[in-house]
Amino acid sequence: MNSGDGTAGGNFSYTITARAATGRAHCARIETPHGCIETPNFIFCATHGAIKSATMAHVKDVGAQIILGNTYHLWLQPGYELVAKHGGLHRFVGWDGPMLTDCGGFQIFSLAYGRVVDEIKGKAHRSDFQKSLLKVTEDGALFRSHIDGSQRFMTPEKSIEIQQNLGADLVLTLDECAPTHFSKNETAASMHRSHRWETRSLNYFQEHFDDRQRLYGIVQGGEFEDLRRESIDYINESPFFGQAIGGSLGVDKQQMYDLVDFVMKGLKERPTHFLGIGGLRDILEGVNAGIDTFDCVHPTRIARHACALIAKPEAEYAKEHLNLKNARYREDMNPIDTDCDCYTCKNFTRAYLHHLFKAREGTGGLLLTIHNARFMVRWMQSIREAIKGGRWEVFYKEHCGM
Amino acid sequence: MNSGDGTAGGNFSYTITARAATGRAHCARIETPHGCIETPNFIFCATHGAIKSATMAHVKDVGAQIILGNTYHLWLQPGYELVAKHGGLHRFVGWDGPMLTDCGGFQIFSLAYGRVVDEIKGKAHRSDFQKSLLKVTEDGALFRSHIDGSQRFMTPEKSIEIQQNLGADLVLTLDECAPTHFSKNETAASMHRSHRWETRSLNYFQEHFDDRQRLYGIVQGGEFEDLRRESIDYINESPFFGQAIGGSLGVDKQQMYDLVDFVMKGLKERPTHFLGIGGLRDILEGVNAGIDTFDCVHPTRIARHACALIAKPEAEYAKEHLNLKNARYREDMNPIDTDCDCYTCKNFTRAYLHHLFKAREGTGGLLLTIHNARFMVRWMQSIREAIKGGRWEVFYKEHCGM
Repeated sequence: MNSGDGTAGGNFSYTITARAATGRAHCARIETPHGCIETPNFIFCATHGAIKSATMAHVKDVGAQIILGNTYHLWLQPGYELVAKHGGLHRFVGWDGPMLTDCGGFQIFSLAYGRVVDEIKGKAHRSDFQKSLLKVTEDGALFRSHIDGSQRFMTPEKSIEIQQNLGADLVLTLDECAPTHFSKNETAASMHRSHRWETRSLNYFQEHFDDRQRLYGIVQGGEFEDLRRESIDYINESPFFGQAIGGSLGVDKQQMYDLVDFVMKGLKERPTHFLGIGGLRDILEGVNAGIDTFDCVHPTRIARHACALIAKPEAEYAKEHLNLKNARYREDMNPIDTDCDCYTCKNFTRAYLHHLFKAREGTGGLLLTIHNARFMVRWMQSIREAIKGGRWEVFYKEHCGM
Repeated sequence: MNSGDGTAGGNFSYTITARAATGRAHCARIETPHGCIETPNFIFCATHGAIKSATMAHVKDVGAQIILGNTYHLWLQPGYELVAKHGGLHRFVGWDGPMLTDCGGFQIFSLAYGRVVDEIKGKAHRSDFQKSLLKVTEDGALFRSHIDGSQRFMTPEKSIEIQQNLGADLVLTLDECAPTHFSKNETAASMHRSHRWETRSLNYFQEHFDDRQRLYGIVQGGEFEDLRRESIDYINESPFFGQAIGGSLGVDKQQMYDLVDFVMKGLKERPTHFLGIGGLRDILEGVNAGIDTFDCVHPTRIARHACALIAKPEAEYAKEHLNLKNARYREDMNPIDTDCDCYTCKNFTRAYLHHLFKAREGTGGLLLTIHNARFMVRWMQSIREAIKGGRWEVFYKEHCGM
């Protein structure tokens, strides 16, 4: 068995290629056996092994470099054994570029406990998940499949076993996602268990080391700086290839930005992923704090609800998008964005897209998925160019007024 | 004003390029200002100006030559004025190849009266359409929009006006679609009115002649041979560029095949379209009778319900397709069809497609739409090749055993 340290060797490497004049914003290259990820970059969510309503050819065509698969969902349906029979998730889903899988913890814990957004909206217990988490012990988490009701036991070892069968380039340790309503004591206990689980994940990963994969640790500690400091120390001292920022990040955006900044100040310079973040402003703050990659279902999800991403003053209600169902676009002869080079913007007016959503044609969701995916690729590209061109501070300030 | 006869001149022509040794099966080229349609061929339905769940780029990529837009639906949503403002339906929907629009009669009459399939299934009156047709007079049909409840008056002149605004290459006269439950007298009366409406359509078309369009007449007469004979004479004596077979074709497949054969024996050799027909066996019988083009929502509709077209003995229950939701495909490592060269068959297993439908990923419907569209293109191509290669009789017999 190899050491699995993965900080060097194999087909993996992490190289900083440019830095902003001030702060921690930077460009880097993450090399994987399936190609390079230029960072800062966005990871598109193929939760069940598909970008809802689009094909992998679309994702490739818009210039996406990396996608994400979901360990929890793929375990329950279709099962990792079937994916392994195909030679792994790359072959199964028809994607030959870099890929990341999450650990499954978010779905098992966070959705069962309720997320910040649910707490704010008074939906602390989501009906479809509330009864899914049966028991959490030191060994792992017993939960019920939301598909067939079968009992499943998730452990750090199981998460890595599944992820090794799925065969993504970048994989994550299993953590417990503590919710925002946890007290400091509860958050600390959860964090300490997460650290023990991460060490067990690492041990299993090293024992079954496959040079085609590298492991990311996950920083926990909720919104408490002293706990985050302790988690940063744990991650820094562990031989992970990369790291991800997980756990509760407070109840508002400013608290999240402050926490990310605090965490990034302490972490060693390794490939760093910000889990579940995809708002344009959030990405800017993350990049400014030194994050490399982001993922979120947001761009592709809102596309299916007629929302087109746009980074201009005309974006409605500072939501960073246009809602094409709005009657104001009924006779709008413009493309979504005259500067965009995507298939949708080159061929169709807002009036046509408005019509498709009125007529409930699925093609509307697909055309906006293409636009939103291309938008995210161009958005990340413009961030990289600003950093490389020594214009980051100007770019950041200009767009944070959005 | 030009004569609008359209049997010669302009950018339109109809040329027979090959004939089967016996019978009326043939290959032809229909030239239009937007390119050539090689027949026999299949017309893909872009009812509301989109191929549900796919893009026009997909339709082009699979090799489709012509699509169809729906006058009734586009009139009500988004309105032909908006389409005209875009420069026509080609520009609006992003399709630069040949295009046909139907007259709108089918939606107004047939769906209101109930179709054969509804009658058989005891659903003679469809709830969403039954109250839509308010009054039919010699002048036209008063109906209520199913979208906003507004009253609309469809006349032969209005249908042509809409179709001239939509700007398809090939357009249809307005006819009344008499249902199967009409008596012979009712069918005859309806047919005679259809003929008067077709003449009015033709007059309006000629008065507002646009050299970029040609007009098809529609043969009526229900399942009564003497009425069909009368309608054939009317069509043959009228200066239409092409002709379509409409109206009730009886209550079973054999009656339909016999009627089509009877009608095609009598019609002059002009471009001939078979309205709403898309089953593989039905197409074979139509081609054998001398039909040029077919259209149907079937291939793209069943795709969204997990059904993949296939012309092999393994097709389930002689339905000419596989239902990929079926548990038997759960671990099937084969593509839908090893002989198919489409994106879906070249990249994905049946197991993956089964998984997408289980996980309710819209990508499944898109991937099967791509396959089914490519299948139809290849199916029509193999029919043309059989005719050109002097193998039509063998091909026809071989496949009618399906």
